[in-house]
Amino acid sequence: MSTKASRSPSEDAPSSKITIADIAAEAGVSVPTVSKVMNGRADVAPHTRERVEAIIREHGYQRRSDERSRRSNLVELMFHELESAWALEIIRGAEQVAADSGLALVLSESQGRLTPGHGWLEAVIARRPLAVVSVFSDLTAQQLAKLRARDIPVVVVDPVGEPGPDAPSIGATNWNGGLTATRHLIELGHRRIAMIGGPERVLCSRARVDGYRAALETAGLAVDPDLVRYGDFHVQSGYQQFAPLLELADPPTAVFAGSDLQALGVYEAARAAGLRIPEDLSVVGFDDLPVAQWVGPPLTTVRQPLQDMAAAGTRLAITLARGEEPEHRRIELATTLVIRQSTAPPRGR
Amino acid sequence: MSTKASRSPSEDAPSSKITIADIAAEAGVSVPTVSKVMNGRADVAPHTRERVEAIIREHGYQRRSDERSRRSNLVELMFHELESAWALEIIRGAEQVAADSGLALVLSESQGRLTPGHGWLEAVIARRPLAVVSVFSDLTAQQLAKLRARDIPVVVVDPVGEPGPDAPSIGATNWNGGLTATRHLIELGHRRIAMIGGPERVLCSRARVDGYRAALETAGLAVDPDLVRYGDFHVQSGYQQFAPLLELADPPTAVFAGSDLQALGVYEAARAAGLRIPEDLSVVGFDDLPVAQWVGPPLTTVRQPLQDMAAAGTRLAITLARGEEPEHRRIELATTLVIRQSTAPPRGR
Repeated sequence: MSTKASRSPSEDAPSSKITIADIAAEAGVSVPTVSKVMNGRADVAPHTRERVEAIIREHGYQRRSDERSRRSNLVELMFHELESAWALEIIRGAEQVAADSGLALVLSESQGRLTPGHGWLEAVIARRPLAVVSVFSDLTAQQLAKLRARDIPVVVVDPVGEPGPDAPSIGATNWNGGLTATRHLIELGHRRIAMIGGPERVLCSRARVDGYRAALETAGLAVDPDLVRYGDFHVQSGYQQFAPLLELADPPTAVFAGSDLQALGVYEAARAAGLRIPEDLSVVGFDDLPVAQWVGPPLTTVRQPLQDMAAAGTRLAITLARGEEPEHRRIELATTLVIRQSTAPPRGR
Repeated sequence: MSTKASRSPSEDAPSSKITIADIAAEAGVSVPTVSKVMNGRADVAPHTRERVEAIIREHGYQRRSDERSRRSNLVELMFHELESAWALEIIRGAEQVAADSGLALVLSESQGRLTPGHGWLEAVIARRPLAVVSVFSDLTAQQLAKLRARDIPVVVVDPVGEPGPDAPSIGATNWNGGLTATRHLIELGHRRIAMIGGPERVLCSRARVDGYRAALETAGLAVDPDLVRYGDFHVQSGYQQFAPLLELADPPTAVFAGSDLQALGVYEAARAAGLRIPEDLSVVGFDDLPVAQWVGPPLTTVRQPLQDMAAAGTRLAITLARGEEPEHRRIELATTLVIRQSTAPPRGR
């Protein structure tokens, strides 16, 4: 953690890359100022910082290998929010791989903002991590460029948006999971099947909803738009989105809840309405958090291998940080249906 | 149970500090070798390491303030196991305080071993953290001495054992929580009240059981040893310990489950036996994890302010690392009873 502020510009960088002295000359600032920007120090005027960043982006400065070896032994695991058992599964997978590689896992939270603010990124850069694993979060193109300019690879686990063609990422087969969950309900005999999706702008959630639609349509069933609602993945939104559906003239007999936590909200809505699960209502979740086994009745759900996804993402990040070429830069791990006691044929069958 | 023999004499005689050169001379090794040991490097023979450690312990070497300023910006949060939503509450509290102080939170797990192994500590030392926050875990006296010798303060959150008179720690009022939970059941009219404690050797759990006994005895009720069982705080042990009690000739009408997860195991045992909660059985948990609100019926429980405990522990660790004297070195934060829908008067009342 103790790199010197000034570096001799005489040592050779790769031919297309430029030295700190070149950057300093082009920006009209001193070499120590460029170093401060490179190391995420706070004591640089914003417009100076931006000028230096722009030159770095343009020319692609890259640390020399002896600098790289002076990097810390930290892997940065970045969440947009540290909430629900979901986050803990991710942490466990990442921690295991980091520890096995002799690295320390640093945890940071961007406070529920999906795009982390400026201060967060400067703090990350100042720590000089080997790599960043970003969970369910979108970094802006500019933020990605800043990390790339410092040779810090970023892997996105369970990306919110489309990570771009060559951005390394680890996801799950969300579309397939949605298809399987809905087919399970159709096979039990349900025809009025509701869908409570996660946020509409989140890709992994849209994929689940599309899988739901595909299952209905390939079974020759129409999608009733009244039965498709969107929440925010948390318990309360499962309750709020599902409860009104029970007021319909022809209410659903089954629901695919889009996440385990939303499924718990559906449980609450059913309880409030005096409905029994699965006799009066079948419920399928998504994730297979530990809580899915503990609720009454235990929840049928689509298992997402969260620990494995985090482990794969951390391994990929470390591989990239070592300058090695990984076998795959984008991976989707399989989801599987876990049938427990919250699903049954509809009444009268 | 964790501090004793090898407390460094530095606290009594600060003037007797020695230099790295003195240590090297006394150990008969080079100055760089002493430095390697100080910095937790792996390339030192075990017996050399032990000789140097012994001399450091004996003389109480302390970093000079300019060395201290070169310390990293890391706070190490150490778990014995990263499991259950309980851990996530702790992480959130610690992360908040670390981020507010401009520090990074490093997470490590000692893999379920309550006393972390040698390799773990060397890795921590090599990271040179500002401070260590150890959760629900016992460090040996020797491990504590190694950290002290490097001027790295350790704060224990929710200690397993007795942390020793001057060891900084943050706990909760466990005894009081056990008393309040049991009194609530007595006031509802229950007389046959079971107790599923956590592990017997874990002090916070013993305190809850003692609070249970105190509530019964001060109400003039005898403690029936058949109704007191011990689990491991997890769901499965709640089921395993409680299910046999339903076979008794005079089964309990209420149970204080010692943790929310054990309460979920009790729910499962009740469901398997065809008992309704709270009509046939009242259940009180301990912790108030988010899941307590989500289960059916929502769980009456004793709220432990886990986030606040972790935040207070992290603040205390940072204060100590800055060489400041904290107002209090040992704090117990209050627990409170949260009444939901899993408790009611026994049938026939």
